[in-house]
Amino acid sequence: MIVQREIVVDTPGRGTTDVTREIQRVVAESGITAGTCQVFLQHTSASLMLCENADPDVRRDLDAFMARLVPDGDSLYRHQSEGPDDMPAHVRSVLTHSSLSLPVNGGACALGTWQGVYLWEHRTRSHRRRLLVTVHGEL
Amino acid sequence: MIVQREIVVDTPGRGTTDVTREIQRVVAESGITAGTCQVFLQHTSASLMLCENADPDVRRDLDAFMARLVPDGDSLYRHQSEGPDDMPAHVRSVLTHSSLSLPVNGGACALGTWQGVYLWEHRTRSHRRRLLVTVHGEL
Amino acid sequence: MIVQREIVVDTPGRGTTDVTREIQRVVAESGITAGTCQVFLQHTSASLMLCENADPDVRRDLDAFMARLVPDGDSLYRHQSEGPDDMPAHVRSVLTHSSLSLPVNGGACALGTWQGVYLWEHRTRSHRRRLLVTVHGEL
Repeated sequence: MIVQREIVVDTPGRGTTDVTREIQRVVAESGITAGTCQVFLQHTSASLMLCENADPDVRRDLDAFMARLVPDGDSLYRHQSEGPDDMPAHVRSVLTHSSLSLPVNGGACALGTWQGVYLWEHRTRSHRRRLLVTVHGEL
Repeated sequence: MIVQREIVVDTPGRGTTDVTREIQRVVAESGITAGTCQVFLQHTSASLMLCENADPDVRRDLDAFMARLVPDGDSLYRHQSEGPDDMPAHVRSVLTHSSLSLPVNGGACALGTWQGVYLWEHRTRSHRRRLLVTVHGEL
Repeated sequence: MIVQREIVVDTPGRGTTDVTREIQRVVAESGITAGTCQVFLQHTSASLMLCENADPDVRRDLDAFMARLVPDGDSLYRHQSEGPDDMPAHVRSVLTHSSLSLPVNGGACALGTWQGVYLWEHRTRSHRRRLLVTVHGEL
């Protein structure tokens, strides 16, 4: 049994958006009780992230770490035409994840107690981002 | 056909534990000959890693690289309450992997000759870590 | 329905090779219309990458970023016997991806408009690299 649904997220610019609830809803509505849930981001300047879900400072600190490791406006890059945050966004994307593969058990994604799924926007401006969720398993 | 099994690993603190054998055992016992094997770590301060399996210095060097790139006690972070190694552990987790998706072929994970699967503990203290293995395919 | 095919790529040394077309051909020939496509690299000194497919400078800049972050010949490493680019290649591999899980929809991998799939060789010399593609879904 395979169920696919698109999730559209309008991001407010650089930072994280919790999409755990939307993904769990797709799994619940699929009726699939055991299998896998693939979450795929159709963009190369944002990421998907499994992250600690209790303290918002953890996501803030991750963004601070990335801002230091992959600074905007770095003169290393030739690809500069789309703005000082564009090539850093591609680097951040490659260092993190465009696709997450999650287990489905008991009719839900079997995340750990402290795990949430986040869409991480790397561009400074807001963007419309599309996720394709594929749930695959048995009813 | 879907088979799910939990693997529990007590880590000795920061460093790597080879879990290749445990994962191959789940695949062998599932009876599935072709398909996929998803290994999912239900934690955000440890990682899963595919790594060279011949020279232990490779894993030692990976930890040395991470210790330099993501040093403990970094004043950049606001999330400090759980100790100087906690936020660095979350960063290391995001820069590596919480989920590995492996091919199953001929009744086993079709790893390369020099590939092993490792659980990488990022906290300095020992922790109990839970992996959920989902094998999905045909008998 | 499960279809597995091997793709062999002879790389020209460090840099990226577009494998999108080869992967889409496996999916098309499988006859599978909806499901998932796992691409797995059986090596630990090269990577798979989803990356912007319009401007070749983006891939050049990614390699430049990695050359600065993970320089060859770093005295940090003990694993030096296979050359100054070997341990850096393992680090690059762990920081990126050995496995990509892609959605299949309408008989093709449902990539975004600007997404391509690249094999990223991290060794300076040419290598023969093996990818195992597993397409899993419904006809």
